Amino acid sequence: MDNSKIGHHISGQFNKELEDVRNKVLTMGGLVEQQIELAVTAFSTGDMEMAELVIKQDNQVDALEMAIDQECMQILALRQPAAFDLRLLITVIKVVNDLERVGDMAERIAEMAIQLAGADGNNKHDHYYELEHMAELVQEMLHGALDVFARMNIEDVTTITGLDSNVDREYGSIIRQLVTRMMEDPRNITRMLDVLWIARSLERIGDHACNICEHLVYMVKGEDVRHLTQEELEKKMKE
Amino acid sequence: MDNSKIGHHISGQFNKELEDVRNKVLTMGGLVEQQIELAVTAFSTGDMEMAELVIKQDNQVDALEMAIDQECMQILALRQPAAFDLRLLITVIKVVNDLERVGDMAERIAEMAIQLAGADGNNKHDHYYELEHMAELVQEMLHGALDVFARMNIEDVTTITGLDSNVDREYGSIIRQLVTRMMEDPRNITRMLDVLWIARSLERIGDHACNICEHLVYMVKGEDVRHLTQEELEKKMKE
Repeated sequence: MDNSKIGHHISGQFNKELEDVRNKVLTMGGLVEQQIELAVTAFSTGDMEMAELVIKQDNQVDALEMAIDQECMQILALRQPAAFDLRLLITVIKVVNDLERVGDMAERIAEMAIQLAGADGNNKHDHYYELEHMAELVQEMLHGALDVFARMNIEDVTTITGLDSNVDREYGSIIRQLVTRMMEDPRNITRMLDVLWIARSLERIGDHACNICEHLVYMVKGEDVRHLTQEELEKKMKE
Repeated sequence: MDNSKIGHHISGQFNKELEDVRNKVLTMGGLVEQQIELAVTAFSTGDMEMAELVIKQDNQVDALEMAIDQECMQILALRQPAAFDLRLLITVIKVVNDLERVGDMAERIAEMAIQLAGADGNNKHDHYYELEHMAELVQEMLHGALDVFARMNIEDVTTITGLDSNVDREYGSIIRQLVTRMMEDPRNITRMLDVLWIARSLERIGDHACNICEHLVYMVKGEDVRHLTQEELEKKMKE
């Protein structure tokens, strides 16, 4: 399937409305991706101003969510769409909800980065390689999910959702590592808890990327694939 | 506003469909409430079988979410509702998403209860009074939110959302307490982290109850009140 599904309406105005909604979702997605990038960099470098920027920009993400929701409701009320168009609009409402939550996670990471920078001084996090790798993984997942939405091509969905087990594995390993450091020196506990919240937020971003993929499968195929295992999803996608 | 908004359709069949969806949401809500109750009791008493039951029943919550979603999509496609009915259906789709997440939180609490019971033996959690009180608060919030949905009366919404600052305060106090216990004896760290995840899950349940309230205000008033402060929401509700 490709974008041609979008362009088939007799009403050129309706086409424009749907295109506009899709573009806004991609704008919101891009903004959220940037938020994660900035938050993770702020954590790695201890750049407090960058972290403050992430927190400040969360309002923009929230405003985009509300604007897109409202636009979808208006189209639903006025155009009374069916089939693919209806699924597209409902999917958009769900996707922007996940994106908004990802924005909240980025904000959370930024808050923790500020706490850590305040406690530590700058440039003291160079050794959290695993966390940085986990961040790269979930960024790849979210980017992939947004790409699926942009191209309306769900072929790569299982590749994206398949990364989530790697994320979970790295998350588990980071938690064990943090517990060890806490035990070695209890003075580390508060700081390690801040790092733990960052790991947790990244893990949640991976989950939201998977949610978005599932919504998009529903949009394209009309089948609800939530709550399937990775194996079940792979099988379903080959049907 | 009362239920009379629901009964005004010329098509008796359409009325029945909307009533059916509403009843299913309330069934799902009741199930999720029960899950929290069981999970928290399993934690307090160390009853592993009860915790296993919560984990097992999560499938039912997931299945209800998918069934309700599908029913809403069918009504949207066939009836092409507008105004209040459209908002009702979109709100239901959002509310069941929050309820499903609450079910996940209950499952999480049950998992932690099992880990703690395994590590501790039974009846060792009698001293987590603050956690139990926090659980009561978020249960009250969720029950209130479901009650708003059942009665379609949003008068009490700010009372419910107002409780969230109490939840956040208790959550902060529990975290500080857990950190202290970790520092006092590093052998407590793993166990205290399990308790921390329970506190975190409860705090999230409070957030989801607030989300549900916000969705319901939108349903009844047609106004998006997300991302407002408690004061702003109170002001808005008096308009």
